[in-house]
Amino acid sequence: MIREDVREVQLSIRKISEAAAEKEDCVRWDIGQPSFDTPENVKKAAKLALDDKQEYSPTKGIEELRKAVADEESIKEGIEVGAENVKITTGGMEALYSIFAARLDQEDTLLVNDPSWGPYRLMSVVNGNKVEQCSFFDENGELTRKVEKTVRTAELLVVNSPSNPAGRVFSKKEAKALAELADETGTFLVTDEVYWRLTYGKKHHSPAAFAENSAIIGSSSKNHAMTGWRIGWLVDSAENVEQYSKVSRALTAAPNRLGQRAAVEALQNDSHVEEMRKEYENRRDIAVERMKALGWEFEVPEGAIYAFPDVGRDGWEFAMEALEEAGIAVVPGESFGPGCDTRIRICFGATDRERLKEGFDRLESWL
Amino acid sequence: MIREDVREVQLSIRKISEAAAEKEDCVRWDIGQPSFDTPENVKKAAKLALDDKQEYSPTKGIEELRKAVADEESIKEGIEVGAENVKITTGGMEALYSIFAARLDQEDTLLVNDPSWGPYRLMSVVNGNKVEQCSFFDENGELTRKVEKTVRTAELLVVNSPSNPAGRVFSKKEAKALAELADETGTFLVTDEVYWRLTYGKKHHSPAAFAENSAIIGSSSKNHAMTGWRIGWLVDSAENVEQYSKVSRALTAAPNRLGQRAAVEALQNDSHVEEMRKEYENRRDIAVERMKALGWEFEVPEGAIYAFPDVGRDGWEFAMEALEEAGIAVVPGESFGPGCDTRIRICFGATDRERLKEGFDRLESWL
Repeated sequence: MIREDVREVQLSIRKISEAAAEKEDCVRWDIGQPSFDTPENVKKAAKLALDDKQEYSPTKGIEELRKAVADEESIKEGIEVGAENVKITTGGMEALYSIFAARLDQEDTLLVNDPSWGPYRLMSVVNGNKVEQCSFFDENGELTRKVEKTVRTAELLVVNSPSNPAGRVFSKKEAKALAELADETGTFLVTDEVYWRLTYGKKHHSPAAFAENSAIIGSSSKNHAMTGWRIGWLVDSAENVEQYSKVSRALTAAPNRLGQRAAVEALQNDSHVEEMRKEYENRRDIAVERMKALGWEFEVPEGAIYAFPDVGRDGWEFAMEALEEAGIAVVPGESFGPGCDTRIRICFGATDRERLKEGFDRLESWL
Repeated sequence: MIREDVREVQLSIRKISEAAAEKEDCVRWDIGQPSFDTPENVKKAAKLALDDKQEYSPTKGIEELRKAVADEESIKEGIEVGAENVKITTGGMEALYSIFAARLDQEDTLLVNDPSWGPYRLMSVVNGNKVEQCSFFDENGELTRKVEKTVRTAELLVVNSPSNPAGRVFSKKEAKALAELADETGTFLVTDEVYWRLTYGKKHHSPAAFAENSAIIGSSSKNHAMTGWRIGWLVDSAENVEQYSKVSRALTAAPNRLGQRAAVEALQNDSHVEEMRKEYENRRDIAVERMKALGWEFEVPEGAIYAFPDVGRDGWEFAMEALEEAGIAVVPGESFGPGCDTRIRICFGATDRERLKEGFDRLESWL
């Protein structure tokens, strides 16, 4: 028998995406898939790496990539790590799942922000855990009483900056406040920073820089337009890396070798990141202007590749109608948290500027 | 806190492998890594596929590979499946873990053969389950009373043919007996057939051909010398595939795209399989002759790439001494089951014939 809680899971984003794929000339703002292809130098590195033997990678990843990741993570203010602190994983997902499975017993709780990325909840269901969700910060950038209280019953505090879906980037003060909250309450901090190189005029601060006990999640998927390669990583103490590696060994044995060779090149010769970041910033500006014109309420995205406006009515209904009547695919806010029913997520990273404008033109005509 | 049961896990094979890697001129019979590289036509297909956009694969895998897998699986007597029955995974490991996680509640039990592949146990620990292990067949190829009894308290019956570590290949009668046992007792059957194309004079029979409720596990890793690519699959009803896909979405999001393109070529233009199979059979013959000369007891491997002899003394001691004194890395039998303390596993697929002979020469001088 399939577990009941697994059977009950609805992958709402997929429902939209499957319908969108069947629709002709649909504007695809649903999936977090960069419009950019993997850079040419990265593909070339993969072609060269194909001449070597395609045997198992070590479970923790190839040494060269672990070193490159340590170097990149150490660019962050207050972070200084070596290859021994890095485990390469099958995307950021496996990094997260490895930590959840290594740390959480059945019925243990993890605490995430409202709104936050849907798969945290999915992973928790699969791993048999509970999820608590509340707003971490009030309008003044102060921790809410709710998070200060709820964290006490949670085993993991999962934070995400730049965030999916809202594009929120923690200030230094906010990053520090979350880290101190975790330390004070003895809650392990997982800080998901897979979009950290995509910020728009605001500096990225890793909460891990201020925490005693934390792990950073990273990935080549979004920063380097490498979603198809499935290369991510986690960063923690060497001892904890050993433990997560046992879990990862059980999930996938090891990350794929070729993707790791490609990722080494992506991290070491990375001028593409700034090119893409600039272009995403342009699109962010367009989206902001057009959402204002539509009269929607939203926070201006400071990073990542999404906008998360309030459309003033049920997000599911809006999404289904937008798809049917205007040929635009967006994700209903509901899957991001209890406070998001009237929101939708727009991935402005997924379409080029022309297509982005085309989408908003359609929305305007339709609304 | 890291879970205690995770902390207690010892990856014995890794302990040996790390010591072996540091030793000069060591004969590596420890890791199940084919000596062969991925075939040239497969690498060429990957080079061509690199020209396409390297975006996310669908969670279930690309349609072309799902179809190719369905075609290959349907070669097996009594199996007839389509693309809708196939989910591509990050190696056979993720296929197995997805089924375990989708079907097993905390403390549920899975039943495996004695001996069997160690990671079944590791996956169970990570997923919070119990493992029962007993010999499935007696000397006459009849089901043991033990398995007939133990299966009644198990939620999953996991079988493996050709088997790792013993190279056992089920006869048609045995495959049928296991399937009927599973159906009679309402136990879901998971049949791990990742070595099915590597048999030596004995035909492969899938127990799934005779079972009402079962899933087949497959992989390109061993049959096609593609371990580094991490492409495996599971085969079940379309409805169950949907459920496993939810779990897989939580573990890794999707399998890597490039490896799938390579695997399509490997499955469709597969003359390399027979070439490798023949060479493995030659090596099997050498290993059998030399193990006989050493006076060891063993079953002649009928498939896969391992021999599992009884060395007449503690397998751990033997393995450590063989490594130190003769420069030969093998895996102690202990990690394969309670009845295997005096056995060792030799991977004859990992070294060419010359090196295989060299290893046995060293063993003879040493013993």
